[in-house]
Amino acid sequence: MKKKRRLAIAVIHGANLNLLGVREPEIYGTTTLREVDGAIRALCNELGCKVTIEQHNGEGELIDAVHAAAAQGRAIVINPGAYAHYSYALRDALASVSVPKIEAHVSNIHARDAFRRRSVIAPAVDGTIAGLGVNSYLLAIRAAVSMLEGK
Amino acid sequence: MKKKRRLAIAVIHGANLNLLGVREPEIYGTTTLREVDGAIRALCNELGCKVTIEQHNGEGELIDAVHAAAAQGRAIVINPGAYAHYSYALRDALASVSVPKIEAHVSNIHARDAFRRRSVIAPAVDGTIAGLGVNSYLLAIRAAVSMLEGK
Amino acid sequence: MKKKRRLAIAVIHGANLNLLGVREPEIYGTTTLREVDGAIRALCNELGCKVTIEQHNGEGELIDAVHAAAAQGRAIVINPGAYAHYSYALRDALASVSVPKIEAHVSNIHARDAFRRRSVIAPAVDGTIAGLGVNSYLLAIRAAVSMLEGK
Amino acid sequence: MKKKRRLAIAVIHGANLNLLGVREPEIYGTTTLREVDGAIRALCNELGCKVTIEQHNGEGELIDAVHAAAAQGRAIVINPGAYAHYSYALRDALASVSVPKIEAHVSNIHARDAFRRRSVIAPAVDGTIAGLGVNSYLLAIRAAVSMLEGK
Amino acid sequence: MKKKRRLAIAVIHGANLNLLGVREPEIYGTTTLREVDGAIRALCNELGCKVTIEQHNGEGELIDAVHAAAAQGRAIVINPGAYAHYSYALRDALASVSVPKIEAHVSNIHARDAFRRRSVIAPAVDGTIAGLGVNSYLLAIRAAVSMLEGK
Amino acid sequence: MKKKRRLAIAVIHGANLNLLGVREPEIYGTTTLREVDGAIRALCNELGCKVTIEQHNGEGELIDAVHAAAAQGRAIVINPGAYAHYSYALRDALASVSVPKIEAHVSNIHARDAFRRRSVIAPAVDGTIAGLGVNSYLLAIRAAVSMLEGK
Amino acid sequence: MKKKRRLAIAVIHGANLNLLGVREPEIYGTTTLREVDGAIRALCNELGCKVTIEQHNGEGELIDAVHAAAAQGRAIVINPGAYAHYSYALRDALASVSVPKIEAHVSNIHARDAFRRRSVIAPAVDGTIAGLGVNSYLLAIRAAVSMLEGK
Amino acid sequence: MKKKRRLAIAVIHGANLNLLGVREPEIYGTTTLREVDGAIRALCNELGCKVTIEQHNGEGELIDAVHAAAAQGRAIVINPGAYAHYSYALRDALASVSVPKIEAHVSNIHARDAFRRRSVIAPAVDGTIAGLGVNSYLLAIRAAVSMLEGK
Amino acid sequence: MKKKRRLAIAVIHGANLNLLGVREPEIYGTTTLREVDGAIRALCNELGCKVTIEQHNGEGELIDAVHAAAAQGRAIVINPGAYAHYSYALRDALASVSVPKIEAHVSNIHARDAFRRRSVIAPAVDGTIAGLGVNSYLLAIRAAVSMLEGK
Amino acid sequence: MKKKRRLAIAVIHGANLNLLGVREPEIYGTTTLREVDGAIRALCNELGCKVTIEQHNGEGELIDAVHAAAAQGRAIVINPGAYAHYSYALRDALASVSVPKIEAHVSNIHARDAFRRRSVIAPAVDGTIAGLGVNSYLLAIRAAVSMLEGK
Amino acid sequence: MKKKRRLAIAVIHGANLNLLGVREPEIYGTTTLREVDGAIRALCNELGCKVTIEQHNGEGELIDAVHAAAAQGRAIVINPGAYAHYSYALRDALASVSVPKIEAHVSNIHARDAFRRRSVIAPAVDGTIAGLGVNSYLLAIRAAVSMLEGK
Amino acid sequence: MKKKRRLAIAVIHGANLNLLGVREPEIYGTTTLREVDGAIRALCNELGCKVTIEQHNGEGELIDAVHAAAAQGRAIVINPGAYAHYSYALRDALASVSVPKIEAHVSNIHARDAFRRRSVIAPAVDGTIAGLGVNSYLLAIRAAVSMLEGK
Repeated sequence: MKKKRRLAIAVIHGANLNLLGVREPEIYGTTTLREVDGAIRALCNELGCKVTIEQHNGEGELIDAVHAAAAQGRAIVINPGAYAHYSYALRDALASVSVPKIEAHVSNIHARDAFRRRSVIAPAVDGTIAGLGVNSYLLAIRAAVSMLEGK
Repeated sequence: MKKKRRLAIAVIHGANLNLLGVREPEIYGTTTLREVDGAIRALCNELGCKVTIEQHNGEGELIDAVHAAAAQGRAIVINPGAYAHYSYALRDALASVSVPKIEAHVSNIHARDAFRRRSVIAPAVDGTIAGLGVNSYLLAIRAAVSMLEGK
Repeated sequence: MKKKRRLAIAVIHGANLNLLGVREPEIYGTTTLREVDGAIRALCNELGCKVTIEQHNGEGELIDAVHAAAAQGRAIVINPGAYAHYSYALRDALASVSVPKIEAHVSNIHARDAFRRRSVIAPAVDGTIAGLGVNSYLLAIRAAVSMLEGK
Repeated sequence: MKKKRRLAIAVIHGANLNLLGVREPEIYGTTTLREVDGAIRALCNELGCKVTIEQHNGEGELIDAVHAAAAQGRAIVINPGAYAHYSYALRDALASVSVPKIEAHVSNIHARDAFRRRSVIAPAVDGTIAGLGVNSYLLAIRAAVSMLEGK
Repeated sequence: MKKKRRLAIAVIHGANLNLLGVREPEIYGTTTLREVDGAIRALCNELGCKVTIEQHNGEGELIDAVHAAAAQGRAIVINPGAYAHYSYALRDALASVSVPKIEAHVSNIHARDAFRRRSVIAPAVDGTIAGLGVNSYLLAIRAAVSMLEGK
Repeated sequence: MKKKRRLAIAVIHGANLNLLGVREPEIYGTTTLREVDGAIRALCNELGCKVTIEQHNGEGELIDAVHAAAAQGRAIVINPGAYAHYSYALRDALASVSVPKIEAHVSNIHARDAFRRRSVIAPAVDGTIAGLGVNSYLLAIRAAVSMLEGK
Repeated sequence: MKKKRRLAIAVIHGANLNLLGVREPEIYGTTTLREVDGAIRALCNELGCKVTIEQHNGEGELIDAVHAAAAQGRAIVINPGAYAHYSYALRDALASVSVPKIEAHVSNIHARDAFRRRSVIAPAVDGTIAGLGVNSYLLAIRAAVSMLEGK
Repeated sequence: MKKKRRLAIAVIHGANLNLLGVREPEIYGTTTLREVDGAIRALCNELGCKVTIEQHNGEGELIDAVHAAAAQGRAIVINPGAYAHYSYALRDALASVSVPKIEAHVSNIHARDAFRRRSVIAPAVDGTIAGLGVNSYLLAIRAAVSMLEGK
Repeated sequence: MKKKRRLAIAVIHGANLNLLGVREPEIYGTTTLREVDGAIRALCNELGCKVTIEQHNGEGELIDAVHAAAAQGRAIVINPGAYAHYSYALRDALASVSVPKIEAHVSNIHARDAFRRRSVIAPAVDGTIAGLGVNSYLLAIRAAVSMLEGK
Repeated sequence: MKKKRRLAIAVIHGANLNLLGVREPEIYGTTTLREVDGAIRALCNELGCKVTIEQHNGEGELIDAVHAAAAQGRAIVINPGAYAHYSYALRDALASVSVPKIEAHVSNIHARDAFRRRSVIAPAVDGTIAGLGVNSYLLAIRAAVSMLEGK
Repeated sequence: MKKKRRLAIAVIHGANLNLLGVREPEIYGTTTLREVDGAIRALCNELGCKVTIEQHNGEGELIDAVHAAAAQGRAIVINPGAYAHYSYALRDALASVSVPKIEAHVSNIHARDAFRRRSVIAPAVDGTIAGLGVNSYLLAIRAAVSMLEGK
Repeated sequence: MKKKRRLAIAVIHGANLNLLGVREPEIYGTTTLREVDGAIRALCNELGCKVTIEQHNGEGELIDAVHAAAAQGRAIVINPGAYAHYSYALRDALASVSVPKIEAHVSNIHARDAFRRRSVIAPAVDGTIAGLGVNSYLLAIRAAVSMLEGK
């Protein structure tokens, strides 16, 4: 029972990810957010862990989502979208909580515009995964489960 | 009919523009937002184009407004207010959509505080107009109509 | 009567302050936001001034709160949280209003991460107080009352 | 009569604009400078304003042209070409004169090389218009006429 | 007796503060240093704490004053004047001592010249208060007394 | 047969990784390189892919290893150690080859010294994984296998 | 005779100085260039030295003027206007010649816009005088005469 | 015949090169521009290619020269002098034309003042040669001929 | 009588100027401070103005000297030595007083080490003179007298 | 005999050049290193000079090669590859030796990624040639021969 | 006799070193300045050289001490404390004198706060020793004696 | 016996030090590496400590040498040559080991090219000694022996 509580993950999609698969497909691919969410749920099912998924374009809503997930003891897999590059408030939200937390990016942010090369979120999470497409999310799920299971 | 759909514009006012005409009138003038909106509507009427106008202080709401306008095929005339200078999330929202999009500023942002001289939004829009008071909006409307009409 | 209107203060807590006392207690101490609010209310009572207190994680909501407080002639005591370090929109909101306005920080932001050493809000307020724990709020209340009383 | 004098505009094309329509057409389009000048003249005719148009590759000649236009009370619409990015002498020339003055760029300079993103001319003019192709000139003409007519 | 020793404060005025009330009154106001010192003494009297006040234009003398105050167990309220912006030696003096120490500035240093926006002293003190005129000193006295009294 | 060739991975450990588990264990943990290599081999066995593992302290040897791996069609999982932060020659080696290539770091480089926050290697690989301990390698192996299998 | 040749000075006015006395009089005063030239001629007459005076808005013409003055053995008093801040070509022209050469500015360039605080010309001249109004020229004439006379 | 047209080169000397051999001979040597031009003509004769040579101190004239050379299908060998370090207008002129174009410098600009280490012209030409004295020109001629001959 | 009071100048030599003529003579020449002071006194005598001369190595003493000179209505000619490059306290002292004030440097500070190229004092004085040897002082005296005499 | 010794050149290829012609052919062309070496040998044969050619991916080996070439009195033609951009050790190796030394790059490094625009090697060699493809090597050979022959 | 004069050293302790052993002992150790001075005297005795030791918190006093030591032909061992990081006046004092001069720091300044990593004093002394505790002084004494003895 | 093991030092010379005494003698002196090594051996003999000395031009070999020395419990005296300025891999090697470690430089790196003023190695060693010629090594040996002997 205690274990069940621990094997729970909150996947939080940030700004503009509602347009995934539609927006700039040469960068982000053609897989839609709905399809990504399907793959996430399938993997969580396979790994025996619960998952909730939400998407927000607003910084305040993302902060709220981080607070809520942590209050429930869920590990956090977050793709902040462009907030990664300047939202110190979101960084503080993540730094404030002690559940496992992993930042995932679909594209290789280091190979794009200068402003995308730095994530101000990164120092406040446990690990980061970028550039592997939908796989970035799935590997982050695996990492979160490992951490929840006692590493 | 198809043409009617094309001649539609969404004017999106960003942060603190609800105080236009009241706030720092030595910079922004004494024309209120209500008066600006009246002038915009009059010009759109004259040019035979539909227009919707909204104002938001929140970044998430502005992103939502961009997504919605584009989903309806409307050209976008946006004055992001101070978000122009740091909101990469709003920039991404604009980069994600392919309707005509023009950034307008009432004051000459290049002649003010250092942080205002750079718009991170600018690279994601088609064109920018600044420093011409209410006229910045009206010329942006004209530019948007030209683009909708096939340039 | 006129005086009563003047002796009114809006205390605005920004991002992540709902976690005060819980979040990183080695930096922010163990006093909870509820306890802080109690101390604020007690001091305001002692000084004969009205006070409203609100907390928001969203930038737009904080801007709205500043606008509303100013519209009612309230002095503003604001701890923007991490928004202090990059929210030019919040800065503009504060610059737009002419009531007394004081920025307060619980921790000594100048002795922490590089990005925290600069407040973009500071040039738009009357004064700043940082590093004195809960006392930062209480001294800000005193300063606001002095300013409302005619300095 | 006095009005006629006021409704006069000097359009000043800067460095390399003699190659417009030939040079890097993927950036600047295929409309030649001659065609642009035709469109400018047609619009000025329609708006009942006089116009002179000149093009110079030399910085000194551009400064002379600004001085001369202002001495005659003409509004100035100037596309400085690359001088926009470093010619403080041209900036001073514009700052020295008090006629309406508008900077126009055919391409969206904010979406190109880093050095193009900043115009040192911009703080010395009333307004700037960029990225709208030939329309940048035409909207600048409209703005200049508005300013000459008393805004 | 022990308590008496603890309730003692050294107020240290730095460079050019001897000219307060005379120098640039549009920035620093017209209250003279003598008047400020009177207000400080009155408040200390009210709060039951001893106070010594000194002013020095030399960096070495300010360092000596910090050392001496700390050797006597006095809390320090220091307005370093412009030394705040570059005196790492004064910073080290403050970092070397463990009495309560608060930096006070009459003007809002964050709203002035670029070089004034950063205090190199700030990371070495407990807290900072700026922009509240003479009140900056009085609130600093209050904060120091709170800290001496056990917070 | 062709498939067998494709399911081959070269794991390349860079500078100082021979000391893993011994060196600064509070940062890198106590798992030795030998143990890491064992876990890598076990996972590759499970996933049905061949693996070679090598470690070099020299930049030239790492470049040679990248060239050799690519010449054999192996996917590359590389932890360059500190070379990640300045070796443009290693970056070029990776940019020169078209096999799947993933950068892995044991520690969260973004939460450490300033110079570690930027990887000059990152723009030349497909994806990066950091901060997840030994798991960084294992997830990179999984990602490489996915890419070799046709994504 | 040889002495007469030595006591000759070329005063070279740079960009926009033809507008002196008219342009931004709050910065540059109301003395016109014609009046400045009169004062220069009067002083040269008094000091027994020949003087030629010229003004150019073009960088090439200024370089030519420097070359010509040096070829005739004249000392150079130059106010480059805004070219002072970026014309490395003019700097090279001055570095190329070995006659006495002094840079003069009417206004205190160090107390104005950031870009004006640095003169790239300064390292290539013997001395600089700034901020003393018309006197800057006259003192430069005196300095040049001293240098021509053997210091 | 067609070949003859192709084997034509315009050598363009920029600012201050008229003083070559006289100016700072410890840097630029004692060969005069006349002698350099002689060597250029001799080599062109040997290689069977036509050559025109011109020198200008003005930026506008250099731009005109580039335009003219390209209009005649001549390859361009240009030593911009100090314009190399800041003339974005000259850079644009070179970027606008598609003939072979090579930048040559007599001295090793990378071993001199900081401002000389960067050529803003370099990204707009095919190749650069620096530091080899007169030979820089002659090798540039050879390179231009190779490119004209079809590489 | 009033005039006599006005024609008084304080010459203030800063750090290390006691070594003038001895220290690094290849930069500062071989004229000793005593000789400089003699020349200053001679010129003041000639111009009918009183002069006091002092030299200090300490920042505090220099600030005191500025305060004292201004309190007596003397114009100030100051060579701050290296304090010119970082003493914001000395800058504030000069900004605090309204007598004529001129900064003089013996050597051409713009042609030396990078840190010497900027004077933080310069924005707080009326004018600056540098690079003209002892003449820098003498011309500053002349400028000060002109200003005292009503310009 | 002495002459024979002098007419000897060491061509040193740096990191990743073993992949020339294969690696990123859109940048470096399709000529392989073997073909380049053939062209180098043919030209040296024609010019009557001996040549040795080597390629190394390691920094230490490149430094050794520089030392060895100089010990034998050979001129050095070096393409350091990406080491050009950060290897101060290689720079020191080149600065340590007094034979003719020329840096050659196949591509125009100034028109590529930001980090490639600066060569830290360049200040330590006699001259640089870049952007001319294989011709960069051949012109460098010619320049080296000229220098060996007494310029 | 002459030799005796040469074997004399002035040890100069700068700002806050009077607190050595008391101040931040985790950085500076627990050895007091008195104990350091004892060790210095013992070593000087052993090496047969005279020594004077002084400590000052003021910049002017430190400059005076450098001047005086040099006037007496003493070698200088100086630990400037935090003045090392910004006192260009102290740097000039050291650059002005030609006796042996060595900078010593107790702690490893390169491993601490960013501002401590650079010593502006270092370019003006012969050598620097840092991080070796009291030994830094003793090794500096040895080095000074070696230099005095003719290296 | 245990003591013997502790009194062992590894002296590691880095890039280009094989040329010491030959290379740029005006900077590094004329003492050859062989002579330096002789002096080191003599001093170690005198101090009763074992010493091994090696020199490498390759970064990887230097890292290996650091690992090996530490594995044997030897103190490390290292002159990394130019690797000091960019080799984060060498820094990590030194940070990884806990034996006494001292960085020595023959020349005063702080008084030379900008890039030499910073050592990225310095934060990872116990202390640094620079500018004292061969003595830098000998004093480092003394320091290492002190540390091995228990400080």
